Amino acid sequence: MNDMTLEAWMQAVLDEVECALQQWVPADAPAGLGEAMRYGVLDGGKRLRPLLVMAACEAVGGQRPAALRAAAAVELIHAYSLVHDDLPCMDNDVLRRGKPTVHVRYGQAQAMLAGDAMQALAFEVLTPQDDSIAPALQARLCALLARAAGHAGMAGGQAIDLASVGRPLDEAALRDMHRRKTGALLQGSVLMGAACGQLDATALQGLSDYGAALGLAFQVVDDILDVTQESHTLGKTAGKDLNDNKPTYVSVLGLEAARRHAVELRDQAHAALHRCGLPGTARLAALADKVVDRDS
Amino acid sequence: MNDMTLEAWMQAVLDEVECALQQWVPADAPAGLGEAMRYGVLDGGKRLRPLLVMAACEAVGGQRPAALRAAAAVELIHAYSLVHDDLPCMDNDVLRRGKPTVHVRYGQAQAMLAGDAMQALAFEVLTPQDDSIAPALQARLCALLARAAGHAGMAGGQAIDLASVGRPLDEAALRDMHRRKTGALLQGSVLMGAACGQLDATALQGLSDYGAALGLAFQVVDDILDVTQESHTLGKTAGKDLNDNKPTYVSVLGLEAARRHAVELRDQAHAALHRCGLPGTARLAALADKVVDRDS
Repeated sequence: MNDMTLEAWMQAVLDEVECALQQWVPADAPAGLGEAMRYGVLDGGKRLRPLLVMAACEAVGGQRPAALRAAAAVELIHAYSLVHDDLPCMDNDVLRRGKPTVHVRYGQAQAMLAGDAMQALAFEVLTPQDDSIAPALQARLCALLARAAGHAGMAGGQAIDLASVGRPLDEAALRDMHRRKTGALLQGSVLMGAACGQLDATALQGLSDYGAALGLAFQVVDDILDVTQESHTLGKTAGKDLNDNKPTYVSVLGLEAARRHAVELRDQAHAALHRCGLPGTARLAALADKVVDRDS
Repeated sequence: MNDMTLEAWMQAVLDEVECALQQWVPADAPAGLGEAMRYGVLDGGKRLRPLLVMAACEAVGGQRPAALRAAAAVELIHAYSLVHDDLPCMDNDVLRRGKPTVHVRYGQAQAMLAGDAMQALAFEVLTPQDDSIAPALQARLCALLARAAGHAGMAGGQAIDLASVGRPLDEAALRDMHRRKTGALLQGSVLMGAACGQLDATALQGLSDYGAALGLAFQVVDDILDVTQESHTLGKTAGKDLNDNKPTYVSVLGLEAARRHAVELRDQAHAALHRCGLPGTARLAALADKVVDRDS
């Protein structure tokens, strides 16, 4: 797929991931659970994490069927975290991806269960009972995903987020929070894609550094968009962090310095790719550009 | 460990599992998350699922280090489900294992995050980065656990439970709910223990049938205890299902018929073990007896 434009490649990957999720997220789970799960994950979002998985897999010439499962799994984890994060006891948000949030539509209890079942489903998707992924790679992908999602990664970052409402954080503490909360799963996406192929330690370190820089850049830009864009552009409630008195890159650095920082991080991501010494990292480089240049 | 009495064997296994959980559930996860996770899983519960994993592993002469990880992982899934189930938007319970529930102690948001992180940790525990479990076995254990915990298993059963409040269920529908809600993880425990060794298809089917019968027996007895025991004996709120207008084996069959059904299921569990043709299933048989004869 290397002769495609970025846009055509992205569309092809998004179609493939959507089709896989349509197939793997059950319509027939009992008592409305499947419907709530599908509402929470299908037809929405930028699918940045799946794009990173597939681009990293292509960069290392990896196995596409395994990467497609990894892409679906990481999106399931991301989507479950949004479903739980939107609940009244957390961020209490009513709008997500331009639609009412899952708990608004299906009730809080069903939303919590749907999120729980989506996390389990991610690990089901990674462990197919056919021969589509070698068992050792299944284990490796489960290991990477569990660590990115868990206490040292995403869930840990959310706990810091919860504890930091109304408290000033310095830039180092803010960075630590975001490296876990958002960065761990973005970096994990790159590492899962890379795990689908063979690569040496230098290339692995380069991709890991790329994922870390891109993950942080994503959050800095998210913080900028939260104060510069309208809700209808974002598809979620704008100005929420400010209203919730949460520390952000904009509140800590100011808007202009936050913008400069996003560009620095993009440059770090590019430099890390260069260090990989892999021939096919153009898609990853272009995704870093898109993360920083986006307006929603 | 075959020459030990059941009680001595149980105590040895419980000590080993507690020690493993003490080591694997992080004390240092950020912003109080580790403390909430530890509160939710350490020092409490009957640990029936770990006992089933270890007894099944012994029955097939399996690898104990792998089984110990499986035992800890399945208990983490069970404990996370209790933490989420006790939340106000679900069962709204304040007492569990004789202590205030996690959300009473740490708040609803932290309880939800702790549950989420416990589920991820279960899959971390199953995928160690050392050589203690062969990668193919890691993958197999992840596959079994994810399916037992997810939409077709525990989470699906909870969705049915949620939808059935105040509605009459016939015995078949009640059985389907409990096979998923409680039975899937109990049967999964047996299958995970069995996966740690080698066994033929007949033995696997026998252990699977044993797990199914024992899982249902556990729930029938739970329903009986809910109406016959006091809260202080159970360590959780007694009479809750009745007060919440939930269908139970007692409400559907009546108390005496429910008691007879529990004994029938125990006998089915014993018969299934007999069909396995394995020499070392005495512990599993004794655990089935304990499940039916317990008073808490």
